[in-house]
Amino acid sequence: MFLGRVIGTVWATRKEERLEGLKLMVVREVDLELRPQARTVIAADVVQAGVGEVVLVSTGSAARQSPLVEKRPVDALIMAVVDNLDFQTPEALEAAYVARRDPLLADLDAQPES
Amino acid sequence: MFLGRVIGTVWATRKEERLEGLKLMVVREVDLELRPQARTVIAADVVQAGVGEVVLVSTGSAARQSPLVEKRPVDALIMAVVDNLDFQTPEALEAAYVARRDPLLADLDAQPES
Amino acid sequence: MFLGRVIGTVWATRKEERLEGLKLMVVREVDLELRPQARTVIAADVVQAGVGEVVLVSTGSAARQSPLVEKRPVDALIMAVVDNLDFQTPEALEAAYVARRDPLLADLDAQPES
Amino acid sequence: MFLGRVIGTVWATRKEERLEGLKLMVVREVDLELRPQARTVIAADVVQAGVGEVVLVSTGSAARQSPLVEKRPVDALIMAVVDNLDFQTPEALEAAYVARRDPLLADLDAQPES
Amino acid sequence: MFLGRVIGTVWATRKEERLEGLKLMVVREVDLELRPQARTVIAADVVQAGVGEVVLVSTGSAARQSPLVEKRPVDALIMAVVDNLDFQTPEALEAAYVARRDPLLADLDAQPES
Repeated sequence: MFLGRVIGTVWATRKEERLEGLKLMVVREVDLELRPQARTVIAADVVQAGVGEVVLVSTGSAARQSPLVEKRPVDALIMAVVDNLDFQTPEALEAAYVARRDPLLADLDAQPES
Repeated sequence: MFLGRVIGTVWATRKEERLEGLKLMVVREVDLELRPQARTVIAADVVQAGVGEVVLVSTGSAARQSPLVEKRPVDALIMAVVDNLDFQTPEALEAAYVARRDPLLADLDAQPES
Repeated sequence: MFLGRVIGTVWATRKEERLEGLKLMVVREVDLELRPQARTVIAADVVQAGVGEVVLVSTGSAARQSPLVEKRPVDALIMAVVDNLDFQTPEALEAAYVARRDPLLADLDAQPES
Repeated sequence: MFLGRVIGTVWATRKEERLEGLKLMVVREVDLELRPQARTVIAADVVQAGVGEVVLVSTGSAARQSPLVEKRPVDALIMAVVDNLDFQTPEALEAAYVARRDPLLADLDAQPES
Repeated sequence: MFLGRVIGTVWATRKEERLEGLKLMVVREVDLELRPQARTVIAADVVQAGVGEVVLVSTGSAARQSPLVEKRPVDALIMAVVDNLDFQTPEALEAAYVARRDPLLADLDAQPES
């Protein structure tokens, strides 16, 4: 899945009949800090996401694993609205590792050699 | 799904027999302002899209979720002709957010501290 | 599907047994003017395409939608030999649009205001 | 599959009901030397991977090949925690090849011509 | 499918139980001249490929089309060891075309106009 922001809606009258009744949204991929990225997809929506909301998008056959989109020609699905993101930068992970390691090394140094 | 513009047709006499009777179109991806992008695909068409029309293309197994293309070796399908696109730039979304927020902040500032 | 040119053959003696009897070709993607692109794939062939021919390649599960490749570990299939390509550049499409529009505008200008 | 490091968690209250009970993690792709790469995905987790751990991620329909994620709209799955990676650089492979070849060539040179 | 070279092995104790018994290899994509490319994948192996060997890798659902990997969360499969590659550059194809064409044109020129 990837993170995106709903930025619009698509209307189509002439369409494959299995699309009838499906809402199609424009979603711009965003990074973890919610900055817009290059990828834009048109995705079906089963969680009533509104324009401006940050969502999770599933692609491929995963996008049809919901009763509302089963057997429809849909390859991207908004399947969750994101409440919160909690993530660490590689630098933070490294710092946490060092913070755990250094006291252990200090303990080792403090032990008399046997 | 992605947005594209139909720009041509492909003819093939020697082909897998399950392709018989399918119309194969050349589709150039376009961005939200309909400017041509790098990706070009050959897609089957089930909505009689004409050259020049802006369409939605489904890819992968989604491209076979229509009675006309079921069990055929097709990985891209024109499944809708786009009537209208309504979208907001990230800047517009930010402006709308600020426009809602600022009066609330002004109200807060105007309240006497309790 | 994408356009490609068959540029070679792959031989493999030690292979998954379901590949037995399948011809595996090297295909270089080409653009609409048949210029070679970056992508090269190894594809199964069910239409007896020869080296040098321009073909259509299906990828993903679409590549197994033919009796000859069903249930085989194949993710790319040559499924047609291209006879002819007919396409318009975005500039040509724009010019055609203007050519249709301008006489209509001229007619409008010529009508007396009511 | 690709190598990644778990760097966070995503919370979503409003979601497709089949996602209920699934843990969704933020995974950053890493190279063989565990340096962060451009790709970041949100993946379901069935092996209780913790933040900071190096994992294998399956994508596409493979991501639903586990009893916990079957028929759910999930396109990326953490399916293993990596214990160890053993790999050779192309240079090392070349050196090993030369090390095997050169004694053979020397033997050939030492043989009297017949 | 794409061409790759096996460059290593991955070990994982904590994993989805359906992975039990599968060998997971590190594969670096190579071009037709076997030069390493950017893409590196972790692939299941059903042909006992060794480190250093040039192989064919299937991706997506194709990677589960073998009795050993059926219904396992695997999205890349080493399904053949390459014995030999035979390919032509676009320049060679062009030269071959010209070599066939020019004698025909010379014949035409040599014929008396009727």
